[in-house]
Amino acid sequence: MTALVRKCIQKMAAYVPGEQPSDPGVIKLNTNENPYPPSPAVMRALGQINGDMLRRYPDPECKALRSAIAKLHGCSPDQVFTGNGGDELLALCSRTFVEDDGTIAYFEPSYSLYPVLARIRDVRSRAVCLDKDFSWPDTPERIASRCSANLFYMTNPNAPTGRLYPKRDVLSFCKKSKGVVVIDEAYVDFAAENCIDLALRLKNTLVLRSLSKSYSLAGLRAGYAVGPKELIAALFKTKDSYNLDRAAQCLALAAIRDQPYMRANARRIIATRARLAGALQSIGFLTLPSETNFIWAKPAKISAKALFLGLRRRNILVRYFDGSRTRDYLRISVGTEEQIDMLLKAIAEIQSRLAKGSPSKNGNFF
Amino acid sequence: MTALVRKCIQKMAAYVPGEQPSDPGVIKLNTNENPYPPSPAVMRALGQINGDMLRRYPDPECKALRSAIAKLHGCSPDQVFTGNGGDELLALCSRTFVEDDGTIAYFEPSYSLYPVLARIRDVRSRAVCLDKDFSWPDTPERIASRCSANLFYMTNPNAPTGRLYPKRDVLSFCKKSKGVVVIDEAYVDFAAENCIDLALRLKNTLVLRSLSKSYSLAGLRAGYAVGPKELIAALFKTKDSYNLDRAAQCLALAAIRDQPYMRANARRIIATRARLAGALQSIGFLTLPSETNFIWAKPAKISAKALFLGLRRRNILVRYFDGSRTRDYLRISVGTEEQIDMLLKAIAEIQSRLAKGSPSKNGNFF
Repeated sequence: MTALVRKCIQKMAAYVPGEQPSDPGVIKLNTNENPYPPSPAVMRALGQINGDMLRRYPDPECKALRSAIAKLHGCSPDQVFTGNGGDELLALCSRTFVEDDGTIAYFEPSYSLYPVLARIRDVRSRAVCLDKDFSWPDTPERIASRCSANLFYMTNPNAPTGRLYPKRDVLSFCKKSKGVVVIDEAYVDFAAENCIDLALRLKNTLVLRSLSKSYSLAGLRAGYAVGPKELIAALFKTKDSYNLDRAAQCLALAAIRDQPYMRANARRIIATRARLAGALQSIGFLTLPSETNFIWAKPAKISAKALFLGLRRRNILVRYFDGSRTRDYLRISVGTEEQIDMLLKAIAEIQSRLAKGSPSKNGNFF
Repeated sequence: MTALVRKCIQKMAAYVPGEQPSDPGVIKLNTNENPYPPSPAVMRALGQINGDMLRRYPDPECKALRSAIAKLHGCSPDQVFTGNGGDELLALCSRTFVEDDGTIAYFEPSYSLYPVLARIRDVRSRAVCLDKDFSWPDTPERIASRCSANLFYMTNPNAPTGRLYPKRDVLSFCKKSKGVVVIDEAYVDFAAENCIDLALRLKNTLVLRSLSKSYSLAGLRAGYAVGPKELIAALFKTKDSYNLDRAAQCLALAAIRDQPYMRANARRIIATRARLAGALQSIGFLTLPSETNFIWAKPAKISAKALFLGLRRRNILVRYFDGSRTRDYLRISVGTEEQIDMLLKAIAEIQSRLAKGSPSKNGNFF
């Protein structure tokens, strides 16, 4: 790569998002999208977007949207920041809270974007390895003081494992941390508890939320951060002036205002999640207790990679991460009941083919 | 500000975008928006957005849109990068092409975001002061070698002055530059020539385009960069995975494909620009030759600030920049014929009130 590019960028590999196939026939259980459409209120708002007004810049401060979010969480709009998807919020934090000689820390495995963000900032990154069962490897206080990071990214519930870290542990961790703790709650609407109140009461804690999963709006790019107004004010200095377009502001507002739809939708996914977990366990898979819209599962009788490839050949996409801590597992997004039926049928077929030792037409076993 | 925030962010002031009043009665000539609606093709595409599909992530590589842009400029899609408005592209360049101990340079006055981007990156910034008539202060070669920047932001035609730097000078400048030259052509569809061919033939030159002005899509946030594929590939490493949402990709595609509408619209604005410039000159204003959708004008008989305030009181917003090089001028966006009539009438009224020495009801002169 040309010498015109920063050295750290030359050396790094880009983050690779999950596949986004254009074939509508694919059963897509690989990127934790919601299988159900956005709220009818979002559909109505979409139909009412004034095309003529697209010639005008959007509100740079997203006032209406931030007010609605503040109302939802019982805080003030100056404790709320909105961004072009959760990813923009994460990246902004790396540029706002970490000096050039600073450190970004995170658990491993977790969202694989975190080390990429550290590389882009060209700062130290410190991965705290989770225990064998993907719980914390030590007391919250000891983890916090040992990694002494300027910024700690904590996905809670975690991805790809689906585990929820108990709030009392998160609180102890945040209190002991000297830097900013970003609790990425992208999946929290599928969980039993959340940490918004910590962000509203501690000086160093931000909670991030995304509209991609529980609000079925991954295609829109909208997320927000809640936390101390000093940290929120700093994010306003580093953001692009108009980071959220008119359509995103308007549709996100409609989505946020329709909490009952989101809640009902989340309950439906939680119910399917329980059925999927039970079915996988019944065929010998090891599954972790999930508080998200996906299941982290270790297949029985077949390697995770072989099952991933076998499913892929049957037009079912799940996510496989080829790392030392992750290669025995698959991350399976919770789809509709019908999609889960098809997934389970395909797994049964692959397992039975394997048991009989009969290769498929193209010579592959799965 | 809290010590959790990077020192350079604590010290800096945020970029202040032009006012975005919610009152629809305001005549808004302050942020260079297009007074005419987007293409009917954009309106149709808006009506056809599949709300259900918003639950799926957008294409992270914006393939359809990048192909259409590549076709437009006769290049390959790997020479095209799309972003969440021109501002995201500018910020990405600062993070991709400038080492932590590097330098960002730009002309002064120009887009006032440039020094802010340098401050966010905490790198040196070097402002090259334009001549009294806002032309280059030296030969292209000498300017390029003296500022020896890793990244040079060059708005061409320039804002807020409206001047177009001749392409032969830009070419000499780029050839002599050791770093990356970003030619920000946000206003180029209103100009007589452009530098796309330089970006396609030089190793260090990117051309940025925006859909905000000539395509009437400021509210959408869509822009693109054209240039050497090595530089484009580096931008792909530093961007957020899904920086352009589904709606933006789809509407931007419709806009790019309707070149005749954009061209006709630009011609209309160029005609109004000529009339506005003539009218301002006839009442003694000094105007610079504009190749943009705004006029940079020095009022006669009244200070720029007083005229700005007088117009504001009459619900007409223009842009006033309070800097040593800019405070004698106003930047006036070219609106519709009717808006320009109202602007000229208001200026005449303010000038006549001033000549008579009669204060208005609230005791102000203007």
